[in-house]
Amino acid sequence: MATAGKVIRCKAAVAWEPNKPLVMEEIEVAPPQANEVRIKIVATGVCHTDLYHLFEGMHKDGFPVVLGHEGAGIVESVGTGVTEFQPGDKVIPLFISQCRECRFCKSPKTNQCVKGWLTCKGKKLLQFLGTSTFSEYTVLNQIAVAKIDPAAPLDKVCLLGCGVCTGFGAAVNTAKVEAGSTCAVFGLGAVGLAAVMGCKAAGAQRIIAVDINPEKFEKAKVFGATEFVNPKDHSRPISQVLAEMTDGGVDFSLECVGNVGVMRSALESCVKGWGVSVLVGWTDLQDFAARPIQLIAGRTWKGTLFGGFKGKDGVPEMVKAYLDKKVKLDEFITHNMTLDQVNDAVKLMKNGQWCLKYFMLSSIFYLRVYGIYLK
Amino acid sequence: MATAGKVIRCKAAVAWEPNKPLVMEEIEVAPPQANEVRIKIVATGVCHTDLYHLFEGMHKDGFPVVLGHEGAGIVESVGTGVTEFQPGDKVIPLFISQCRECRFCKSPKTNQCVKGWLTCKGKKLLQFLGTSTFSEYTVLNQIAVAKIDPAAPLDKVCLLGCGVCTGFGAAVNTAKVEAGSTCAVFGLGAVGLAAVMGCKAAGAQRIIAVDINPEKFEKAKVFGATEFVNPKDHSRPISQVLAEMTDGGVDFSLECVGNVGVMRSALESCVKGWGVSVLVGWTDLQDFAARPIQLIAGRTWKGTLFGGFKGKDGVPEMVKAYLDKKVKLDEFITHNMTLDQVNDAVKLMKNGQWCLKYFMLSSIFYLRVYGIYLK
Ligand SMILES: NC(=O)c1ccc[n+]([C@@H]2O[C@H](COP(=O)([O-])OP(=O)(O)OC[C@H]3O[C@@H](n4cnc5c(N)ncnc54)[C@H](O)[C@@H]3O)[C@@H](O)[C@H]2O)c1
Ligand SMILES: NC(=O)c1ccc[n+]([C@@H]2O[C@H](COP(=O)([O-])OP(=O)(O)OC[C@H]3O[C@@H](n4cnc5c(N)ncnc54)[C@H](O)[C@@H]3O)[C@@H](O)[C@H]2O)c1
Ligand SMILES: [Zn+2]
Ligand SMILES: [Zn+2]
Ligand SMILES: [Zn+2]
Ligand SMILES: [Zn+2]
Repeated sequence: MATAGKVIRCKAAVAWEPNKPLVMEEIEVAPPQANEVRIKIVATGVCHTDLYHLFEGMHKDGFPVVLGHEGAGIVESVGTGVTEFQPGDKVIPLFISQCRECRFCKSPKTNQCVKGWLTCKGKKLLQFLGTSTFSEYTVLNQIAVAKIDPAAPLDKVCLLGCGVCTGFGAAVNTAKVEAGSTCAVFGLGAVGLAAVMGCKAAGAQRIIAVDINPEKFEKAKVFGATEFVNPKDHSRPISQVLAEMTDGGVDFSLECVGNVGVMRSALESCVKGWGVSVLVGWTDLQDFAARPIQLIAGRTWKGTLFGGFKGKDGVPEMVKAYLDKKVKLDEFITHNMTLDQVNDAVKLMKNGQWCLKYFMLSSIFYLRVYGIYLK
Repeated sequence: MATAGKVIRCKAAVAWEPNKPLVMEEIEVAPPQANEVRIKIVATGVCHTDLYHLFEGMHKDGFPVVLGHEGAGIVESVGTGVTEFQPGDKVIPLFISQCRECRFCKSPKTNQCVKGWLTCKGKKLLQFLGTSTFSEYTVLNQIAVAKIDPAAPLDKVCLLGCGVCTGFGAAVNTAKVEAGSTCAVFGLGAVGLAAVMGCKAAGAQRIIAVDINPEKFEKAKVFGATEFVNPKDHSRPISQVLAEMTDGGVDFSLECVGNVGVMRSALESCVKGWGVSVLVGWTDLQDFAARPIQLIAGRTWKGTLFGGFKGKDGVPEMVKAYLDKKVKLDEFITHNMTLDQVNDAVKLMKNGQWCLKYFMLSSIFYLRVYGIYLK
């Protein structure tokens, strides 16, 4: 492309400090260095983790930052040593890399590459989760980019960059939901809805959808939920309500809220003996906790990052599953907006006013991984 | 036997109230009713759970009680409907039953029979964990009795009634320790030592034994521990010490102390991606807790009751393994005492003054399960 080898000036939504609106800035995105890939972001979703960083975690040293980690785009140019990607390739940035060389990548048990979350310390502008998709351009190390089918519509498959893979994989890869089982999904944002879809794909017989916002139930039904529980309708603990509905508790529960109280409820909602509960929701401000008897009685507590998918392998497979109509994506999308409207999107999600959470960038934007130069 | 069908008068150590010495009392043990088995207890161990009940849990409605749940004995007589047992059979009382009929017994995933811990509510004298082996006679429902090889020495195999099955099974059945793996065992009482033995049997390459009492290390070596860590020797968190020793953490950790702080350390000592930590130690006074990232990063938290063994199946197998010299039992025994000395035994264990914890009843004693009549 004509821009190859040159600095690109583009727009990005910068979070200068916690708890403040994002500010549209012009940034300079340097050409990709060795092993790097510069990507034109075509579409991105908003994930609750973006909001968490801005409004809940609020860790001082995490700012200024360009948020966004659920994007899809097109390779603009590549640095030296990159053979896997060419300009024009459709790609999804990965917030956990897959180097294929470390002992974690080599183990079939995990997707937690030792390179972990890519971070760029000591840089003027931080790249959120190594991806920073709220920008027209971004640069990533090639170990953190997944090449996908050229037929994939980027404004849909961007959702596979985080939420949908996370929830689906939480059920399928981490909980390993079994055919005929009874499941409960707590929290029906995109992550929870994708977990419902994962439970269904795994053959669960009953999928109980739990949310304090009953407006979510209709959508949950679309993804396969069979029963619906609003904790606000009950004075008893929700674990008791579920135990009564299921003769002792569910086989699998998935926490897709990010609330330590809900994490406890989700564990306690599992049947003794073999119940498995998975933390999908995120918080680092508090401990999750329970009484030892909960585990001694045979329950298992697990967690998932990106649904256990190894990104380079899993994301293209999920893209293919979407193209083959084996997983839904269109149904997650509630709003299409431009990057300029990012603060409206954040506000909508924060207030829980929209049913789901995704917005699309219909204009085209950029950023730079290691060292973003603000004008 | 001559006593069949008659009430047996015998001695038992009664815990009248929390935090007080046990009192030797004469009790009356009624004949076994339908589906019951009356057992002459020949030997019993002391498990930390006995001490927990007396000194830590101290739940008011758990007294008066006859403690002890790690016993072995001989069937004295059986009630109507009992065909599996005959007078003279060698048996081990089970504190979790195996009814073979409930959905938990039918599942290969768990040993948690729906009959659970047998309890006898509303009775004058409570039977501890349904067994009450600190007595000359006891009565159990036949679903809570395991028949064992007539060649088994009862003064050794009684240890399979709790501690040794628990620790060994925690490693082999619950953690599913893998060949070549690195393990850490926290707490080196009989449960922890048996866990070390289980790790070794499963083919673990490194077994790191952790205890604040370094006198335990020599014995741990006998059971297969390869390295030894005393948290008191370090100012850093023990999870950091273990992470450095193992390039990121152990594959499996087993908490055999019953301390929620140690439970947290044991989880945090696991490697990200696939580390599995098992709660074996018991407390119901506090929550165990950790930060969500610990599980999100791919660790699994489990728990075990009786090492996951289905009692009627597993205990006779472990007895056979002992007779075949595949598991050690003799090495656990540090003291032989009579039931009259039970308070000395409790004191020794409480003060951690003896290396291990077992004492044997060399005299012969009894009790009654459902409704003990104190004279
Ligand atoms: N583990 C991972 O890799 C990973 C990846 C993506 C997102 N996440 C986390 O997953 C969580 C969900 O993300 P999202 O984007 O779907 O969020 P979201 O805000 O769209 O959805 C959260 C849902 O939880 C519901 N909720 C709130 N409190 C509840 C309660 N007490 N009981 C039941 N439901 C309740 C809300 O009504 C909402 O529907 C967040 O914590 C996010 O940080 C984790
Ligand atoms: N889950 C089950 O089915 C089951 C069955 C039996 C026993 N238990 C429990 O297992 C635990 C161990 O039982 P036991 O009979 O072996 O007890 P024990 O008292 O003989 O041994 C406990 C050991 O832990 C050590 N310890 C104490 N604090 C420690 C610390 N901070 N760090 C490291 N080590 C520490 C002690 O020095 C001692 O060696 C108890 O909590 C008991 O209630 C559970
Ligand atoms: Zn996300
Ligand atoms: Zn890797
Ligand atoms: Zn015990
Ligand atoms: Zn049963």
